[in-house]
Amino acid sequence: MSLIVQKYGGTSVADLAHIRNVAKRVIGYKKRGHDVVVVVSAMAGETDRLIGLADEISPAHDEREHDALVSTGEQVSSALLAMTIIEMGTKTRSLQGHQVSIGTDNGYMRARITDVDVKKIGKLLKSGHVVVVAGFQGIDPEGNITTLGRGGSDTTAVALAAKLKADECEIFTDVDGVYTADPRLCSDAKKIHNISYEEMIELASMGSKILHIRAVEFAMKYDVTLHVRSSLSDKEGTIVTSEDIEMEKMVVTAVAHDSNQAKITLVGVPDRPGVAYRIFEPVSAVGISVDMIIQNVSQEGFTDLTFTVRKTDYRKTLELVKPVCDGLGAEDVLGDPDIAKVSVVGVGMRSHAGAATTMFEALSKAGININMISTSEIKISCIINERYTELAVRVLHDAFKLKKKRAKAVKKPVRKRKKN
Amino acid sequence: MSLIVQKYGGTSVADLAHIRNVAKRVIGYKKRGHDVVVVVSAMAGETDRLIGLADEISPAHDEREHDALVSTGEQVSSALLAMTIIEMGTKTRSLQGHQVSIGTDNGYMRARITDVDVKKIGKLLKSGHVVVVAGFQGIDPEGNITTLGRGGSDTTAVALAAKLKADECEIFTDVDGVYTADPRLCSDAKKIHNISYEEMIELASMGSKILHIRAVEFAMKYDVTLHVRSSLSDKEGTIVTSEDIEMEKMVVTAVAHDSNQAKITLVGVPDRPGVAYRIFEPVSAVGISVDMIIQNVSQEGFTDLTFTVRKTDYRKTLELVKPVCDGLGAEDVLGDPDIAKVSVVGVGMRSHAGAATTMFEALSKAGININMISTSEIKISCIINERYTELAVRVLHDAFKLKKKRAKAVKKPVRKRKKN
Repeated sequence: MSLIVQKYGGTSVADLAHIRNVAKRVIGYKKRGHDVVVVVSAMAGETDRLIGLADEISPAHDEREHDALVSTGEQVSSALLAMTIIEMGTKTRSLQGHQVSIGTDNGYMRARITDVDVKKIGKLLKSGHVVVVAGFQGIDPEGNITTLGRGGSDTTAVALAAKLKADECEIFTDVDGVYTADPRLCSDAKKIHNISYEEMIELASMGSKILHIRAVEFAMKYDVTLHVRSSLSDKEGTIVTSEDIEMEKMVVTAVAHDSNQAKITLVGVPDRPGVAYRIFEPVSAVGISVDMIIQNVSQEGFTDLTFTVRKTDYRKTLELVKPVCDGLGAEDVLGDPDIAKVSVVGVGMRSHAGAATTMFEALSKAGININMISTSEIKISCIINERYTELAVRVLHDAFKLKKKRAKAVKKPVRKRKKN
Repeated sequence: MSLIVQKYGGTSVADLAHIRNVAKRVIGYKKRGHDVVVVVSAMAGETDRLIGLADEISPAHDEREHDALVSTGEQVSSALLAMTIIEMGTKTRSLQGHQVSIGTDNGYMRARITDVDVKKIGKLLKSGHVVVVAGFQGIDPEGNITTLGRGGSDTTAVALAAKLKADECEIFTDVDGVYTADPRLCSDAKKIHNISYEEMIELASMGSKILHIRAVEFAMKYDVTLHVRSSLSDKEGTIVTSEDIEMEKMVVTAVAHDSNQAKITLVGVPDRPGVAYRIFEPVSAVGISVDMIIQNVSQEGFTDLTFTVRKTDYRKTLELVKPVCDGLGAEDVLGDPDIAKVSVVGVGMRSHAGAATTMFEALSKAGININMISTSEIKISCIINERYTELAVRVLHDAFKLKKKRAKAVKKPVRKRKKN
């Protein structure tokens, strides 16, 4: 008998029919003798509906009340799931953040879990209950309701799995695992069976919105093995674990892309202390997140600085940096909203040279010009013209032999033909 | 400076526009120097929406999860109201049942408040905050979320007013007070300025759904003066208080009616111990509430027993009592879903004889036949044919001179005509 923590995302509990499916699956685990703790997100669309109401009051509405408001989404789905499980004859109880309790700091809208009390969960499991926990929410030391930020239910699940020393932490979602590239762009893409925490973090931050990045960091910190899989099938998904365990030794594990990018270049910026701060402070102050930032070596006291933001933040960012540039006496501000980022990710890069060469060669052969380059220990990203995104993903997937290396040749059984 | 507890019902917070009106009113009180604690119901329709989801899972869904589910309605409205008040520049915080905390027993769906901790509220008031409390909900000794039953937000407000020793407890609703009769049936009906707790309880239990009956009982117990008024105007409403204070000495204060009634008569029931229990147990077990019960003196060991239920429960109740009657060997089961109850209510009846005579005479003169009669110390109720409801209310309103006694004759100022 093992202890399993399962997390179901918003699409998995989108309506009562989906909730019934989740209930059946949970009861199946319970009947096979496992202890099960289920973490649920809000029903798909509910969080957006609530935020819409709050934004109507004011786009800059109070953060404490924001959290009190949106945390009701998970309370509703957890109660509905618990009701359904009870209706199907299995004992269960829903627990909210304050009931578990899931202690956080008081950073509303992006609180960090500081302590999880699992006594109540332990008692319920012991008395034969399935435990349903409302994800995404916690409670600060003063008893205020907090939320963990978008995708925070993943973090709730990992934190519970860590504290309960669960045997497995399954993240049920609407895809059946992590792929070597987006299957919609690249029909050759293959499901990755094992991936390291580090690679998963690089992929998550790239817009492969399968797993909340903080949940993966949390899992890495507490060595919780994650299993990302589909709530619509029983197929194995992708195991996210530490590098040394059963990891296939690959230079590159996956190709990722993000078309939701725009770039802004500040030409002829005076190269002196405090300039970067003056440029980026007003941008981050309104909640716009800057992705890549590249600054070339200075020439005669002036430099060019390029950075990328989300396409939707492009106009606003231009408006914000223009006056700053004028104040700094920069030469010009240029922008391009039609770009994309393609990346290759793999822990193997640490020990294998040449990944960058392979990447640049592949793009060059396909006639794709590289605008910007940025590298980390296990990732290389290139900014290219958006219209080549699909092509770039395909040629990189081929260049790193992601299909070939992982595909097992399935031999068709040769049937002997009966002789007449 | 006084401390005021205000309760706003679902129609008063039905949407963001209504919530803004409530916020303005609350801030007005605050600016005039009062300390304000606001109790809110769920946005109109929200509780029904949530119960609809639960009923879809099962009409007999788990009660603990029911409470976890529906309490989100008040959490949403309290957070939205707090946000709006903050947006308008006044300090406030929303508090949920577990945050106040509002302690209850563990009777899910109809929990009773056992203890209210007002320390946190006191601290917030002291630091200049308006405090917004989610009505209807509490928390049991084990930390489970409970709800107080329909209309429970009134009870929350009264309990807070009692514990905080508030100077006033205002119940804002969509009517501007309690009337001598339903103004839609009786255009002569007048607003009652003062009414006793006892009279209000009799009216509330009659389907004058202005105030939750348990809230009035609670107010009576702790001597909290209530002010029932409209959230759409600044007009004074109706003061509900103890009998001896400023009460106008009337025999009858108001005429009430309830058309949502049906009657069932069991003919020739053996008159022996345990019979009533056997008849009513299966009815109450499914949550059907029985209103009037009348049993005449026994004749030769057999009796007729008549009782009333809500029209919507009529068919179901017949189905439930028929087999019991067969088992008891009763002669027959008769029913009539086309009845109504009209009542006159007044603490003055205690000391004045003759109210019953006046009532029967008035109905008789109008040609209205009385089916059943039931009396309490301060109320006389008659069951009549439903089609005479309106007529009965009018003749009773006239017979007890409810209009005349309360109307002040407004003399038109006589203008002297200018002489040419």
